[in-house]
Amino acid sequence: MANVNPDLRKERENGTFSVEKLTNLLDGGKHVTDRRRHVERLALNEFSKGEDYNFMSRKERYISALHKTERALRCCKEYGLTKPDEVYWLWQLAFPHEASPIQLHGDMFLPTLTRQGTEEQVNKYLPLAEKYQIIGTYAQTEMGHGTFIRGLETTATYDPQTEEFILHSPTLTSLKWWPGGLGKTSNYAIVMALLYTNGKNYGMHPFMVQLRSHETHEPLPGITIGDIGPKFGFDTIDNGFVQFDHFRIPREDMLMKYSQVLKDGTYVKSTKLKKSSYGVMVLVRSMLIYYLAIQGLAPACTIAIRYSAVRRQSEQTKSQLEPQILDYQTQQYKLFPILASAYAVLFTGVKMKEIYYEVDNEIQQGHTERLPELHALSSGLKALTSSMASWCIERCRLACGGHGYSAASGFPKIYVAVTAACTYEGENTVMLLQCARYLIKTYQGASNGKKLSGSVSYLSDKVNSRSTITSEFSLKSLVDAFKHRAFRFQACGSDPEDSWNRNSVVLTKAAEAHCYYYMVSVFESVVEAVEDDAVKRVVGQLCQLFALFAIHENAGDFVQDGFISNDQMELVKWKELSLLSDIRRNAVLLVDAFDFHDEFIGSILGRFDGNVYANLFEWAKSSPLNKPEVQESYIKYLQPLLNPNKSKL
Amino acid sequence: MANVNPDLRKERENGTFSVEKLTNLLDGGKHVTDRRRHVERLALNEFSKGEDYNFMSRKERYISALHKTERALRCCKEYGLTKPDEVYWLWQLAFPHEASPIQLHGDMFLPTLTRQGTEEQVNKYLPLAEKYQIIGTYAQTEMGHGTFIRGLETTATYDPQTEEFILHSPTLTSLKWWPGGLGKTSNYAIVMALLYTNGKNYGMHPFMVQLRSHETHEPLPGITIGDIGPKFGFDTIDNGFVQFDHFRIPREDMLMKYSQVLKDGTYVKSTKLKKSSYGVMVLVRSMLIYYLAIQGLAPACTIAIRYSAVRRQSEQTKSQLEPQILDYQTQQYKLFPILASAYAVLFTGVKMKEIYYEVDNEIQQGHTERLPELHALSSGLKALTSSMASWCIERCRLACGGHGYSAASGFPKIYVAVTAACTYEGENTVMLLQCARYLIKTYQGASNGKKLSGSVSYLSDKVNSRSTITSEFSLKSLVDAFKHRAFRFQACGSDPEDSWNRNSVVLTKAAEAHCYYYMVSVFESVVEAVEDDAVKRVVGQLCQLFALFAIHENAGDFVQDGFISNDQMELVKWKELSLLSDIRRNAVLLVDAFDFHDEFIGSILGRFDGNVYANLFEWAKSSPLNKPEVQESYIKYLQPLLNPNKSKL
Repeated sequence: MANVNPDLRKERENGTFSVEKLTNLLDGGKHVTDRRRHVERLALNEFSKGEDYNFMSRKERYISALHKTERALRCCKEYGLTKPDEVYWLWQLAFPHEASPIQLHGDMFLPTLTRQGTEEQVNKYLPLAEKYQIIGTYAQTEMGHGTFIRGLETTATYDPQTEEFILHSPTLTSLKWWPGGLGKTSNYAIVMALLYTNGKNYGMHPFMVQLRSHETHEPLPGITIGDIGPKFGFDTIDNGFVQFDHFRIPREDMLMKYSQVLKDGTYVKSTKLKKSSYGVMVLVRSMLIYYLAIQGLAPACTIAIRYSAVRRQSEQTKSQLEPQILDYQTQQYKLFPILASAYAVLFTGVKMKEIYYEVDNEIQQGHTERLPELHALSSGLKALTSSMASWCIERCRLACGGHGYSAASGFPKIYVAVTAACTYEGENTVMLLQCARYLIKTYQGASNGKKLSGSVSYLSDKVNSRSTITSEFSLKSLVDAFKHRAFRFQACGSDPEDSWNRNSVVLTKAAEAHCYYYMVSVFESVVEAVEDDAVKRVVGQLCQLFALFAIHENAGDFVQDGFISNDQMELVKWKELSLLSDIRRNAVLLVDAFDFHDEFIGSILGRFDGNVYANLFEWAKSSPLNKPEVQESYIKYLQPLLNPNKSKL
Repeated sequence: MANVNPDLRKERENGTFSVEKLTNLLDGGKHVTDRRRHVERLALNEFSKGEDYNFMSRKERYISALHKTERALRCCKEYGLTKPDEVYWLWQLAFPHEASPIQLHGDMFLPTLTRQGTEEQVNKYLPLAEKYQIIGTYAQTEMGHGTFIRGLETTATYDPQTEEFILHSPTLTSLKWWPGGLGKTSNYAIVMALLYTNGKNYGMHPFMVQLRSHETHEPLPGITIGDIGPKFGFDTIDNGFVQFDHFRIPREDMLMKYSQVLKDGTYVKSTKLKKSSYGVMVLVRSMLIYYLAIQGLAPACTIAIRYSAVRRQSEQTKSQLEPQILDYQTQQYKLFPILASAYAVLFTGVKMKEIYYEVDNEIQQGHTERLPELHALSSGLKALTSSMASWCIERCRLACGGHGYSAASGFPKIYVAVTAACTYEGENTVMLLQCARYLIKTYQGASNGKKLSGSVSYLSDKVNSRSTITSEFSLKSLVDAFKHRAFRFQACGSDPEDSWNRNSVVLTKAAEAHCYYYMVSVFESVVEAVEDDAVKRVVGQLCQLFALFAIHENAGDFVQDGFISNDQMELVKWKELSLLSDIRRNAVLLVDAFDFHDEFIGSILGRFDGNVYANLFEWAKSSPLNKPEVQESYIKYLQPLLNPNKSKL
């Protein structure tokens, strides 16, 4: 640590707990930390010296991502990385806050093929796909419909004469639109389309479709395909469109594990299909919560807190250094609740992964009882945490003043990647309403005496009508406060007088209240289980701050019905500020514990060594706009103004 | 309107008021509307057919902006546009949600020269600057210091031997950093530096500095200069850095209107300087509020509301069209409070411009009494409205689902331009604290019996301890609620026991509460003055919604001390939802009234004619990534995977 900025060094000397122990807790054990570090070293060997993403055009970013994809695939093979976590660790360093153009190949194409294809289909396509001789994407959303799947319009009409399906885009809005990697990269896609056979519409079904020639990579006749144009972020991915003009595929290329179209056009249906596709969506959303913490909230706090320890500003007393901006109460009030949220989302994400694997196991043994609850919970949490992550990243950026706005801060890249999660995998408001629908049904069941378990068990509990919060601020009393709010909102949301739409604002708030309660209770149970006293104390403070900040922000929900008294609310505000001072001492260590490499964070402000200014200068000098010193554009547009005589020569 | 989307057409046929009358109200009279439209037609003639900003690299954006600058200057000259409003209208269409590389020449360089320069200096430099043979910027902020001006480090040391100032950057953090147009465009700057003469530091003073050769545009010896690299937005501007290495300028180039350094190094000070520079900052911030509405909030609502009338989705009843998403309560709850905010900020901005001109007049007649109040108010409002505009634009984007994330929506460009205002011209938290400092002083004065006037007069009023809100929701009762909250926060903020830093979170909230009260009361007075009944009704509804939404969002502030009762709060929530239905009918007309050209908004989703999907497809097809169909990168990185045999040939 010889070259570490002295302010950061001092912060690291003054902590009250072992960073390594907290890192192990976050990873899920020392052995996981060790393995992760090993894989990350391999990744850094390959990827630490790349061109600067910030200085590239969109096309260059896409090309660079293709190049890195090839290298990442080679690394995984070379080092025998096959476990999902290991692959994830490597790809995070290959594509920090980016994505590979073939990301949907692994995330959606392969899982759908193996879950929806017959054994014969899997045997035919999987070996090619695993060798990447087929690169596939998953084409579901259309220009006119996203989250509302029943509105999709692409048709697949069976022609028994030729034993083919005719894929067709009957309207402009039916163009497949947005699938990642569809524009330029993939040569195959699983296309979701309305199946028509014998004159009847059987709803959405998956079809394996070759899009481009194996020989030339040109689109096949009958297919128009392309990139949908630049976006807020995700420059590295060719989100694409495809238009089908009576494009024919063999009957055998409908994925037929759960339903078949026979040669004569007879439709044979399975009852298992719905449950299975339900499961894939739940998986993706359950995993997403963890990613939002690791890829969004945690790096954003790391940047803002380290920089706030390095940056000194204002109000100096004579002959003293200006204070670190991390010492300002307003700065702490911006950053520490976000730090607490990063931990809250991370712990919730870990928990959701665990539950998912449990439920997935149960499903494979034929027990689907917990699936609706998990679907509701993952939908609601996906909405709450993606929205929370988005706003928090921007707050971190704004807390870094002017330099936060520079691409050198890393925030712009992180934000545009994370905020997309508010929309993809299900638009957040729709997700909250799906969660609410389940909660209301459950609440009504409980009102009729049904005994509940799991995350909704509180709906059949007796709820306190007065908060038990005292100046001790036990975590139990905080969990209770959120339970009370959630319960109260379910009661409001269940008004049988109102139509669904006329009540939908309240319903979204009810779903959020439920998810907030869930997060606080997960956080509390994690804290209770920590063995090391010093770690337990700091994580407990974060849990308190997470809860108290939310109570203060939503004070009306807690005081309007008298649940929290005026005096208790004054205590809440006092404690909230007093926690800022407590957390101040460990703030830098609490972000160090995330154990991120600088190469992953991608921020000059958030460097581990705190050498911000010198690196900011070096970076600026390498900006492409600085070469050459005097540009052609000067001759063309400025010289005629600045030096009209010379210009006329 | 032959080709207008039928849904939008229907919306426009069903309104309850005259859009033209509301447009005239927003413009400040029919004659202003007419003149604005005339200038905009001239601008469209020149600028309507440009290349697509979204498809350019950063360097191309900068070059394009230089080219447009040259044309905009020519247009202004050709058409004799000299009034600030006229120039603004033209430049908005030349640089929609962008900025010219020479923007600081007009915004800061010229005003500072004419206000701080002696007559001789003005006579020397102004004619050249007006012909753009000098293009100047204003170099104040440094790498290590932004809003905290007293921390700036660049020095200007007088050398009586040669009668020169020696400009020097003594540290890395003293590099001038961020000034717009400094990197590649400007050949001059007014540089703020610490003046040293006869061994004594006299604080910050302005110096006229030539940066680049008139002949070659190369930086002069002793000057290192460049672009600071890419940012979240503002690609068209070369925000720059400059490092001085004992760079000498003649004594005559210190701007000496208010203080002089004589040949022998004697410093002669004026008492007027401080007041004058105070005035420039107040000007910029007072104007900014209006710009945030016109360039940020209003176009964002226009896009989201028009698109929500065109987009149909979900829950169709058999054989009916899917509903317009604007009919969903959740969508209305996202967008209509933002629409109300756009009007609130716009009216507040107009009011601030008026007050500024009044106070500026008073100052020129030697009366500076109102300047501290205007400084406090403009600082607080700048912070509140820039922050509000930022979040609201992102909410609008998110309300447009996946397509909102596409650059085609226009949102990314609008957001990155507007959110910068949270930091530039004074970091928002610092601004709120400056506002609070004035409020606390004033509150304490009032407590000691001092009679107050203007925006702070309520601090010496008697305040109601119970809200007068009834089911009528008179605007007066709403203004009173915000007055009560503001008063209560000033009382909390004035706790004499607490140190400034330990109380600063509360102080920022006190400043926000004050500014919110101010905005609601301005909005109320605008509504009261509207003559046309139909317009008055719709604008009144927006005022109610603006107030009620904020009361609900901050319910704790209003109910905790019993000011608003539990029953009243239930009424608030009911009325809030019922206003959504009222506003629904006129929503499209309320954004049409902003009277924006499609060329200014820059959004396919927000087109006046509503032909979203066809244009989205055309735009995507022209994306540079689509040319050529099969790219070199395929051969290089994909073919070895997809077609290994061919690749080996």
